[in-house]
Amino acid sequence: MSKNLAAMSIGEAAPLLRDKEISPVELTKAVLENVERYDSQINAYIQVEKESALKSAADAENDILQGNYRGRLHGIPMALKDILYFKDEKVTVGSKIHQDYIPDHDATVVKKLKEEGVIFTGKLNMHEYAWGATTTNPHFGACHNPWDLSKIPGGSSGGSGAAVAADMTIASLGTDTGGSIRIPASSCGIVGLKPTHGRISKHGCFPLAWSLDHIGPMTKTVYDAALLLETLSGYDPQDPTSTDTPVKNYTELLSEDLSGKVIGINEEYFFKNVDKPVEEAVRSALIRLEKLGAKIELVKIPTLAASEFAELVTIVSEASAIHHANLLKRPEDFGDDVRFLLEFGELIPAVDYLQAQQVRLQLSNDFAQAFKHVDALISPTLPFLPPAIGDNMVDINGNKESFLDQVIRFTGPGNLTGLPALSLPCGISNGLPVGLQIMGPAFKEENVLNVAFAIEKLNLMQGQKPDLTGVVSH
Amino acid sequence: MSKNLAAMSIGEAAPLLRDKEISPVELTKAVLENVERYDSQINAYIQVEKESALKSAADAENDILQGNYRGRLHGIPMALKDILYFKDEKVTVGSKIHQDYIPDHDATVVKKLKEEGVIFTGKLNMHEYAWGATTTNPHFGACHNPWDLSKIPGGSSGGSGAAVAADMTIASLGTDTGGSIRIPASSCGIVGLKPTHGRISKHGCFPLAWSLDHIGPMTKTVYDAALLLETLSGYDPQDPTSTDTPVKNYTELLSEDLSGKVIGINEEYFFKNVDKPVEEAVRSALIRLEKLGAKIELVKIPTLAASEFAELVTIVSEASAIHHANLLKRPEDFGDDVRFLLEFGELIPAVDYLQAQQVRLQLSNDFAQAFKHVDALISPTLPFLPPAIGDNMVDINGNKESFLDQVIRFTGPGNLTGLPALSLPCGISNGLPVGLQIMGPAFKEENVLNVAFAIEKLNLMQGQKPDLTGVVSH
Repeated sequence: MSKNLAAMSIGEAAPLLRDKEISPVELTKAVLENVERYDSQINAYIQVEKESALKSAADAENDILQGNYRGRLHGIPMALKDILYFKDEKVTVGSKIHQDYIPDHDATVVKKLKEEGVIFTGKLNMHEYAWGATTTNPHFGACHNPWDLSKIPGGSSGGSGAAVAADMTIASLGTDTGGSIRIPASSCGIVGLKPTHGRISKHGCFPLAWSLDHIGPMTKTVYDAALLLETLSGYDPQDPTSTDTPVKNYTELLSEDLSGKVIGINEEYFFKNVDKPVEEAVRSALIRLEKLGAKIELVKIPTLAASEFAELVTIVSEASAIHHANLLKRPEDFGDDVRFLLEFGELIPAVDYLQAQQVRLQLSNDFAQAFKHVDALISPTLPFLPPAIGDNMVDINGNKESFLDQVIRFTGPGNLTGLPALSLPCGISNGLPVGLQIMGPAFKEENVLNVAFAIEKLNLMQGQKPDLTGVVSH
Repeated sequence: MSKNLAAMSIGEAAPLLRDKEISPVELTKAVLENVERYDSQINAYIQVEKESALKSAADAENDILQGNYRGRLHGIPMALKDILYFKDEKVTVGSKIHQDYIPDHDATVVKKLKEEGVIFTGKLNMHEYAWGATTTNPHFGACHNPWDLSKIPGGSSGGSGAAVAADMTIASLGTDTGGSIRIPASSCGIVGLKPTHGRISKHGCFPLAWSLDHIGPMTKTVYDAALLLETLSGYDPQDPTSTDTPVKNYTELLSEDLSGKVIGINEEYFFKNVDKPVEEAVRSALIRLEKLGAKIELVKIPTLAASEFAELVTIVSEASAIHHANLLKRPEDFGDDVRFLLEFGELIPAVDYLQAQQVRLQLSNDFAQAFKHVDALISPTLPFLPPAIGDNMVDINGNKESFLDQVIRFTGPGNLTGLPALSLPCGISNGLPVGLQIMGPAFKEENVLNVAFAIEKLNLMQGQKPDLTGVVSH
């Protein structure tokens, strides 16, 4: 029974909690039981907070029984990426250097979830400082992909991806600077949404690269992503990049009707050098969408070719500016991969950084042009299937390519432009999920969510989930 | 007669033009006569456009006679800094490299002035590429200060400052990246306003440093600055830094009533190491304002101390990003001073540039805090009086200091924060005007204009103007 409870989405659990058919305590216990059962082998949690979670759950139960139901997140157990600040609680940022860092304020997103009555079950594993996409963390151990424990869950929000996929949390939040929400969502077969830049406040989130960072939901369903988006969005004077663009009721706007909608695809960049099984899964989803009445149109986005340089230069420079003092003082306390990237960032001239920002402007103009003709843009999320833990290379149609070069090829443009982008599973290959990415115009998350909702209804995953029967801990 | 006409402000000339008491042709001729009389020695113009100006003036005269008076700028002769694009006309940007550059579009500000029926009398001298503050231009000759021909007019908009002061234009526009409107306004004894960043579109203006650049009015009176501000402000989709903050009718809001207003001064930064006569003129203006009912309050802005580094790193980096290709290809075609600064900018690491941007954020927060308590902030515009042409050093209380180090010390914070800042004359020392700077909260140009309006009414200059009797050309 408890296993089935933990497998629920927010959308499934919320009405049952509201109607007192299940209790927050039952639901939280079910989630914590899965953590006990699986996490010694998946390693999605950096810290489990069993006692405080059960206490919060009892409080929520009490509130709801007394008629004080706060809304759809009340009594929902969630674990978040360990990069978001909880007042007076440790936040490691997946690092040795910050492992005892205790912020004096809640992240704005944490504050909002607390107000909604969310139950926090713990802090989730991540790539050190979010500066990488494997979640093979040198300080807290590698996180494993629930679909195949020998494979990476992607990163940097790999703990969030793995925990959602293995029913060790009902939903989670990740952060995304080059693809760190969408890459683990794709690798773990869940939904991950990077909203428009400025949509969700980043106050109280440890930065990786100021101008590229985003916070967003990682969930089991598109509905849950829409719900978290509408809960967490809105202007925050404490985040200078926050905007006051009106927030919509995304869950109410959800519609699977795509008739008359135009979906763009860009062959030159987003379908080039993609591993066959990934490409086939995405193209077959496109054919299904066409049958639902969507029109598929080819779009040109010329600046994409130059965008990889712009993303790389921007992210390495900004990350190195943030970690500059610690890199000088205690370089040995960074993992080797992160130290290498930080040292690389120190070498970038300001002139190159600034020219990259001009490329970004041009890229944004290109996308804005494209979105005059299409409602959303579809591509693979990743050009490959998740590689083995420890492998620096990926396989694309029999060729070995550098993981680092390939991993943010399709997700990076969303960060450079700040446009909303969502990954959701569209099939299984070799026992691993394939992610499909949907991008949309600025502040039109509803476009992205609606296409995702329609794809979800196609049931391309046929209800398949990771098989964890052999993973039980001892 | 014609000399007195050219001495008029827009505010004086506009009702006479409207009521057909003077004609645009008379007014334009008066201005052009002054150019012929003085400019061989002042060198404020790079190009005089006598024929086309007289033709436009005749057209304007005709329009007005036929009852088609467009508004207060109709028939006003103006020359602009040669950095603003006129469609199909040469723009030199004060450089050799761009001396034959012909843009295919008007700057948005030029387009607006054309629509208002302004008569363009020519293009004004400037520091090469606006990258300096002397207007000692190696390609078009040094511009001279009308108050003392041996002295610099300041820069980079030195031609605009000198032309307005010598009645060789009724008003002008400048650009300001570290103080390039306010420095020549201070040095030439006129009004110069750098509006809030994003207020006036920069589309069609050759950039010096994207994030610091501003366009603004340089005028004989505060009223004229207010009028040009309300004419030129507003959202422009062609400038990505343009904002849609509502524009006010600044001329209608002008009020000299300062009773109950709070004026801040910051002793630690803005009154440190200032040449005595400058300090005395500014402090005596403050005493006069207090007598008018303003309250003077001390404010702290701790980040100012670090702001000089931030301004320097930002401006050199962005300028070098813009000129990078030409610096590699044809370094010998830049003036020595500009080439040196561009070479310096090539050496800045991105990490330093990005840390400077964090200082900017902190500085903006500091100013925002200060403006919770005060309506405006007053300081000297420059810590010294204009030095001799060719002199790299300035005199501050008998000490020789580097011009380059000192010149943007008080104006740079306005560029780093984007806050509105105006310079107007508040006295004369050694035959040279002293400038007083007023800064205000973001998008509250009216605060700045009202304090300036009250100071103007104090008549601290006692009607004194440059004595050009000995300057007549042969």
